[in-house]
Amino acid sequence: MSILLTGLAASSGITIAPAHLLVESDLSIKKQHTADENHEVARLHDSFALSKTELQHLSKRAHELLGQRAVTIIDTQIAILDDPTLQKKIIDRINSHHDTAEWAVKRVEDYYLSVFERKNDNEYLYARATALRDVTKRVLSHLLNVSLPDPGLLDHRAIFVANNITPTDTAQFDKRYVAGIVTTNGGRTSHFTIMSKTLSLPAVVGVKDATTIIHDGDLLIVDGIHGKVIVNPTKEEVEHYRLLAGKFIQEQQKWGALKDKQTVSADGRRFEVGANVGTFADVIDAQEDGAEGIGLLRTEFLYMSKDELPTEDQQFNAYKRFVSAMNEQRVVARTLDIGGDKKLGMVALPHEDNPYLGFRAIRIGLARPEILRPQLRALLRASVYGRLAIMFPMIATIEEFQAARAILDEEKEKLEHAGIQVAKNIEVGMMLEIPAVAVMAEHFAKYVDFFSIGSNDLIQYLFAVDRGNQQVAYLYQELHPAVLRMIRQVIEAAHAEGKWVGMCGEMANNAYAVPLLMAMGLDEFSMSSSQILRVRSLINQLNTRKLQPLVHRAIHAETAAEVRKLVEEYVPQVKL
Amino acid sequence: MSILLTGLAASSGITIAPAHLLVESDLSIKKQHTADENHEVARLHDSFALSKTELQHLSKRAHELLGQRAVTIIDTQIAILDDPTLQKKIIDRINSHHDTAEWAVKRVEDYYLSVFERKNDNEYLYARATALRDVTKRVLSHLLNVSLPDPGLLDHRAIFVANNITPTDTAQFDKRYVAGIVTTNGGRTSHFTIMSKTLSLPAVVGVKDATTIIHDGDLLIVDGIHGKVIVNPTKEEVEHYRLLAGKFIQEQQKWGALKDKQTVSADGRRFEVGANVGTFADVIDAQEDGAEGIGLLRTEFLYMSKDELPTEDQQFNAYKRFVSAMNEQRVVARTLDIGGDKKLGMVALPHEDNPYLGFRAIRIGLARPEILRPQLRALLRASVYGRLAIMFPMIATIEEFQAARAILDEEKEKLEHAGIQVAKNIEVGMMLEIPAVAVMAEHFAKYVDFFSIGSNDLIQYLFAVDRGNQQVAYLYQELHPAVLRMIRQVIEAAHAEGKWVGMCGEMANNAYAVPLLMAMGLDEFSMSSSQILRVRSLINQLNTRKLQPLVHRAIHAETAAEVRKLVEEYVPQVKL
Repeated sequence: MSILLTGLAASSGITIAPAHLLVESDLSIKKQHTADENHEVARLHDSFALSKTELQHLSKRAHELLGQRAVTIIDTQIAILDDPTLQKKIIDRINSHHDTAEWAVKRVEDYYLSVFERKNDNEYLYARATALRDVTKRVLSHLLNVSLPDPGLLDHRAIFVANNITPTDTAQFDKRYVAGIVTTNGGRTSHFTIMSKTLSLPAVVGVKDATTIIHDGDLLIVDGIHGKVIVNPTKEEVEHYRLLAGKFIQEQQKWGALKDKQTVSADGRRFEVGANVGTFADVIDAQEDGAEGIGLLRTEFLYMSKDELPTEDQQFNAYKRFVSAMNEQRVVARTLDIGGDKKLGMVALPHEDNPYLGFRAIRIGLARPEILRPQLRALLRASVYGRLAIMFPMIATIEEFQAARAILDEEKEKLEHAGIQVAKNIEVGMMLEIPAVAVMAEHFAKYVDFFSIGSNDLIQYLFAVDRGNQQVAYLYQELHPAVLRMIRQVIEAAHAEGKWVGMCGEMANNAYAVPLLMAMGLDEFSMSSSQILRVRSLINQLNTRKLQPLVHRAIHAETAAEVRKLVEEYVPQVKL
Repeated sequence: MSILLTGLAASSGITIAPAHLLVESDLSIKKQHTADENHEVARLHDSFALSKTELQHLSKRAHELLGQRAVTIIDTQIAILDDPTLQKKIIDRINSHHDTAEWAVKRVEDYYLSVFERKNDNEYLYARATALRDVTKRVLSHLLNVSLPDPGLLDHRAIFVANNITPTDTAQFDKRYVAGIVTTNGGRTSHFTIMSKTLSLPAVVGVKDATTIIHDGDLLIVDGIHGKVIVNPTKEEVEHYRLLAGKFIQEQQKWGALKDKQTVSADGRRFEVGANVGTFADVIDAQEDGAEGIGLLRTEFLYMSKDELPTEDQQFNAYKRFVSAMNEQRVVARTLDIGGDKKLGMVALPHEDNPYLGFRAIRIGLARPEILRPQLRALLRASVYGRLAIMFPMIATIEEFQAARAILDEEKEKLEHAGIQVAKNIEVGMMLEIPAVAVMAEHFAKYVDFFSIGSNDLIQYLFAVDRGNQQVAYLYQELHPAVLRMIRQVIEAAHAEGKWVGMCGEMANNAYAVPLLMAMGLDEFSMSSSQILRVRSLINQLNTRKLQPLVHRAIHAETAAEVRKLVEEYVPQVKL
């Protein structure tokens, strides 16, 4: 009998192939002493040299296969190997403690990790810790003569099943053979999930117990569209999914033709499908993927890996580059959104028991205007180079929006007084991600130029659930009627005041949600650019008028499961 | 000029008197060695003996003045002094490390605190740590010959201003002289806040910087009704508050007469004002304070300070005692509500980044039916001894309520099969504390017998704010129109199905909220019993029909500040 496992759909497509488990190597070591320190130092040097050669090779492969992001991750590991302080620390331990090379490596790793983790509110150090762990594994593998799992050794088409897929794993992939990916860890926003989209590999992540339930050679169906994994499927299941896979590939081929097209529903209603971007590389992707604008520019990248806050000029130059690159397409910049799970080294935030319910985003901006003001000035100055819109994250009350808006107006006036040009009609809006705001939408709609619904946070608060918490993630339900009710109320309130509504959360590219959102009148959908053409294709096929009965029934349903069924009834193609 | 400070109104009443700062003693010590270990051991014994005598005296005073809760806290400290392991550990340090007695005490305290704090997800150990800190202070004060702050030394009427008020401080109060309390720490649910209600002292807690802004001898007005402290008030302010204080005392005197009366509005609509209880002692208080029922029986007390889960029989006996004591008055028992900030030693819960959005309450109950089932059986068995209702906490979806209800029905059937009597018409309801449920109230209303609105959590999720987090607590707004809209929607949905709605959060005794809640049709108000007569008195004075225009205007207001003003306009007596 077949077994159905479920997880998060990390990358689209369907694949059928045998499983290949990537088993982690046993790198456990014990405290051991040596009488020959020179020998251990020599072994250490050899292991570093071998590791470096391997990583250089992987970096080159990553460059060809995966792009700059992966290269940077691997090059960070090379830099660690080249760091003389690290080598000196290990050699000192060998000489003073008479440690074996492997024990010294382990102890020094522990030391650095404890330093990094004590400061684990810093994303930069967190990335350094991850890199250190990976590189230590590689060094130890040479010292212990144990080979690391090598996805490159695969000599037949197979689906990788692993707990984690590291960037170095990905760089070793032989694209001819890797048919798909199943991991036990990872969420929709993890490093690997993002990579798998670049590779266009069907992938399902967060599949509990996958590495114990699935055995090497088991036939698997990986359905990266719906987040399903079928272990040892029946003949009928294989037949059914072969058909679906074929249809999906046909669909996918059609998408390319939509790149330079507008997004228009079958009944002629115009929508905008934009991209969420966090770096300038994302803007290049967005343009290649046919984005009609930037629905969310995350400005946090300017504040990362630095010891000081970026200056107004540094910010201005960055924003100018984004805004100019998009020509006359709109770029919606969100002011600094830190706190919650996003911490910065140079902005000291207090420890909080519940950071998602804490001091974050505009709450910090209003309490620390010395951070908010230069950002707003930089944005205002960049506004003349294209079509910039500005939005404030985590607004909870009218007073907060008014306070943020007042600061913006003040800075605008100051700039104009100083003779610096600012665009005339900058749209000023807000993220809508707090339930109280949805409840009060008709009042907010009077003051804002637009709302961008942050569905991820909105749903978290609506159900009192941290979706990163595996034990309760089942309560994070994008299709729940309560979510649809809130969204409809927001759209109606905004339209009544002639304002537009976008969405920049994951829900905006959920194939089941898109028909409902467009039929309820959502004006703009923003997402990772790899999803844009899929969503445009879906919207093109659908008729908003004909979907009204679906909306009506979904709004009055009792559960998310009912809504799911209703969507399948009205929009059979989402089942694909 | 007078300075206005604000904080949380911890205990009602108004008082005007000079400030008396309770300054913490300097108990700092340095590492010091001794050559005479025997002398140090002798000093240690003396300091323990002196501390014990003092604590015994305080325990006796607490018994007369404060009741069992305070006595238990102080007796725990005596038990720590009597613990031979602790004494042995200190003496061992003196002998082996040649520490002075004070240094050895400090080091052993550090050791225990680090053990306790590593396990600080356990309430019992947290209480132990607090007690250990207090008792160590006392021992050190004798060793260092420094006196601890002694509120008992006060020889004139004054208002205590301190960072913290400990239970031992409270036990030393001379009621003739203590006019009121202002603290910088503490929330509405802290230990001291509860004590101050027992003492009927006007108190404002969480007043930032109070100990630096206020100086000894400054004239203070403490307004424990509105959470205000005025430092060096003007003549006019003193005059105004003297008048208010007088009115408040008159009011208070009338309350006694309401003890055995029902709660009926001026236009004859009947309401129920019940008590929130967590121990059997609270039930006695509730009856003395004129409760018309128990609106919330917190069952967690059965699970505290134990190494094992309570058995079904232990639970049955406890519930039977509660239910019988209340005669024919309703007792609403809430099933185990742990997780969030409430942890238990014997139920291992994972670490969570955002426990308020995590694995808690019914989410644990449904995942661990071996905990939920015996509790439900015990409740069902106790149901025949009075009028028991059962409710489930933190329900987010219809599926969860149905799953919990199905388990209850199964257990009921099993008991009846086994010939064990169960009451016929046990009401089965749920806490309403998650925004999605308010949005879907008309569906839930079909399945439940009643809702009890947990306003504390509901408001937290509605505004994405942890009210325990000082930096964002200003966003926790009980009077916000969004809160009122959600509540009105719930009440209307419930009444349409003939179901009743209660509220067991802090909002139910907020004088500004009560007129709105009663006018919107809330059926039951449940609160700390010390607040019952105040609320009954207020309801008696008000006419629900005449308040309808207030409700209409409040629902359509934009901010909490507007609602506050509206209430003052329609119900002038709340300004008192």
